[in-house]
Amino acid sequence: MVQFAHLDRTFGALADPTRRAVLERLGAGSATVSELAAPFAISLTGMKKHIAVLEEAGLVRTQKVGRTRVCTAVPQPLDDVRAWTEMYRRMLDERLDRLGELLDRTKGDPR
Amino acid sequence: MVQFAHLDRTFGALADPTRRAVLERLGAGSATVSELAAPFAISLTGMKKHIAVLEEAGLVRTQKVGRTRVCTAVPQPLDDVRAWTEMYRRMLDERLDRLGELLDRTKGDPR
Repeated sequence: MVQFAHLDRTFGALADPTRRAVLERLGAGSATVSELAAPFAISLTGMKKHIAVLEEAGLVRTQKVGRTRVCTAVPQPLDDVRAWTEMYRRMLDERLDRLGELLDRTKGDPR
Repeated sequence: MVQFAHLDRTFGALADPTRRAVLERLGAGSATVSELAAPFAISLTGMKKHIAVLEEAGLVRTQKVGRTRVCTAVPQPLDDVRAWTEMYRRMLDERLDRLGELLDRTKGDPR
């Protein structure tokens, strides 16, 4: 078993379509909370809650600029998601390879 | 915004350390519910709930063999996780590239 720090919070934060859409928007550049809320049928308070979840997961950083809060995407937590997903995928591929070999041997195929 | 079917359920299922450990165990080969529960301080009922979440997300398939339930990992939902993560990561890399170019121009660097 491999332990990855913060993976619960990262996967949890990504398990919501609004939060993923916010990240995609921030992928194009930083934005204020109002700018992020605008395309959604969601209150500012609702959007602030989503942003708080993304901040706790380390996926977004917010900064006060005058009287507005500007949100910026932080890439690092994605590295752990990618590392876990690839590690797990590799395990599944190896298992399938072993099953394939077993099948070949059962069929009497000498390869 | 890119829509990926089932991504909420996939990310939600992965947002738990026991469920990720179950998948890693299944990566080594199929197992019964009792075998999956054994390494954890968890009841059979608790483990069955985790397995139900993984089944709903399409990450695990269970099959009745005599009087036991055998669980097998299903790789496909991971493809969407990988696709979304890579798409988002590419957006962030491109944004950083643009910021780098802007910085170079600001410094008067002709590269």
